[in-house]
Amino acid sequence: MTRKKLVTAAREGLVAWEGIIAHGRGEAFDYLLGERTLPQAEVAARAAVAYLLRADRPLLSVNGNVAVLAADEIGDLARATRARVEVNVFHRTEERVEALVALLEERGIGRVLGRNPDASLPGLEHPRALSSHEGIYDADVVLVPLEDGDRAEVLVGMGKTVISIDLNPLSRTNRAATVAVVDELVRALRIMVAFAREAKDEPEMAETAQGAYEKAGNLRGVLGAIQENLEAHATEEGGVGDNV
Amino acid sequence: MTRKKLVTAAREGLVAWEGIIAHGRGEAFDYLLGERTLPQAEVAARAAVAYLLRADRPLLSVNGNVAVLAADEIGDLARATRARVEVNVFHRTEERVEALVALLEERGIGRVLGRNPDASLPGLEHPRALSSHEGIYDADVVLVPLEDGDRAEVLVGMGKTVISIDLNPLSRTNRAATVAVVDELVRALRIMVAFAREAKDEPEMAETAQGAYEKAGNLRGVLGAIQENLEAHATEEGGVGDNV
Repeated sequence: MTRKKLVTAAREGLVAWEGIIAHGRGEAFDYLLGERTLPQAEVAARAAVAYLLRADRPLLSVNGNVAVLAADEIGDLARATRARVEVNVFHRTEERVEALVALLEERGIGRVLGRNPDASLPGLEHPRALSSHEGIYDADVVLVPLEDGDRAEVLVGMGKTVISIDLNPLSRTNRAATVAVVDELVRALRIMVAFAREAKDEPEMAETAQGAYEKAGNLRGVLGAIQENLEAHATEEGGVGDNV
Repeated sequence: MTRKKLVTAAREGLVAWEGIIAHGRGEAFDYLLGERTLPQAEVAARAAVAYLLRADRPLLSVNGNVAVLAADEIGDLARATRARVEVNVFHRTEERVEALVALLEERGIGRVLGRNPDASLPGLEHPRALSSHEGIYDADVVLVPLEDGDRAEVLVGMGKTVISIDLNPLSRTNRAATVAVVDELVRALRIMVAFAREAKDEPEMAETAQGAYEKAGNLRGVLGAIQENLEAHATEEGGVGDNV
């Protein structure tokens, strides 16, 4: 289903083909995680929400894959955290940005940014640097799901709190991020929406969630879980091999 | 480069979009292997060649990704092992098979099978089951790079010696195969071509290579190498995380 959605979107020009390959990479890591949300991802997701709820100018950045796979969840999260939504794509064409903004607006997200960029992120080549003062450029906390490493690093360099959602625990994006949610996009966003609704008017709940997250230890836990999965499979594999 | 080739091929209908996503999965596993040929993969590749050299009817099975990424290496290996080449695709259309056969023939591979299937592999639905008596159906040793699990299992069930090239050490294809080469396609094929030329008229060399391979231990070694890579990254990650 997910694959079909993405391939259809790629045919229509909403998603770049790079996005299709990136999705495949994500599938492999999800497989290694056991295709489930790890406790570490849940902790990170809650901390991420806390940062968004406590931000002055929270911003959700949406690329082609995110718009196609999770428009509803992005809308729910934007409402629950009072965040703005901006379309930022890696392979920028005006047609693609327009189509993605339209898609998000059709799903009920009001006034999506991205159409008329008036700012430029430092250190990125022109089309990828384009952004909005009202959006990502002046935001203090940005959620960048499925982001590329370059842009994530630039955003961190600008002093922003950066939250990633990325299945590769070792990706440059996750390394750069302040909070790295290592989980599948839709699973992570649903957890975030649920917690945002819960913690919205409970500042202490948000504070606790933020304090409970420690990035290095969290990522080590994720890597440990992958290693355990591999170990379990290795044992099983021994059995399979013995029958050959 | 590789990505560009595949995406262009997908646009032209040579490769199915599933193949693009599968390539992304492969990239993730290659990353975990350190993007290099492990000693275990080299041992497996040499054993694979030995099986091909000692076969009565060796067959190299080629799908869209393989034809687009490694037509020359497939041609070299076919010549060095006197193997037949057959186009077998997951999403079969007559146009795609025709285009892939033409591509391989243009690269100098003589009389490629696949155009006029006259046999049907048991237990697979119709278009995917189509095959040739002269090719995969009556072969005793088949190389199936980037194969799907179902077909690999069927071929093993037919009593064939099945050789896989697949970056996911835990894939159903690798589990089913007699010899599982866990390496990137082109890297693996080049090693195989070099060894095939070396061992072609040296039966003892082939016998030794075959005897040196033990599947379960080989795959455990591969999983161990991935775990070591993760461990190394985890340590490094600690450092990164500490700066946050």
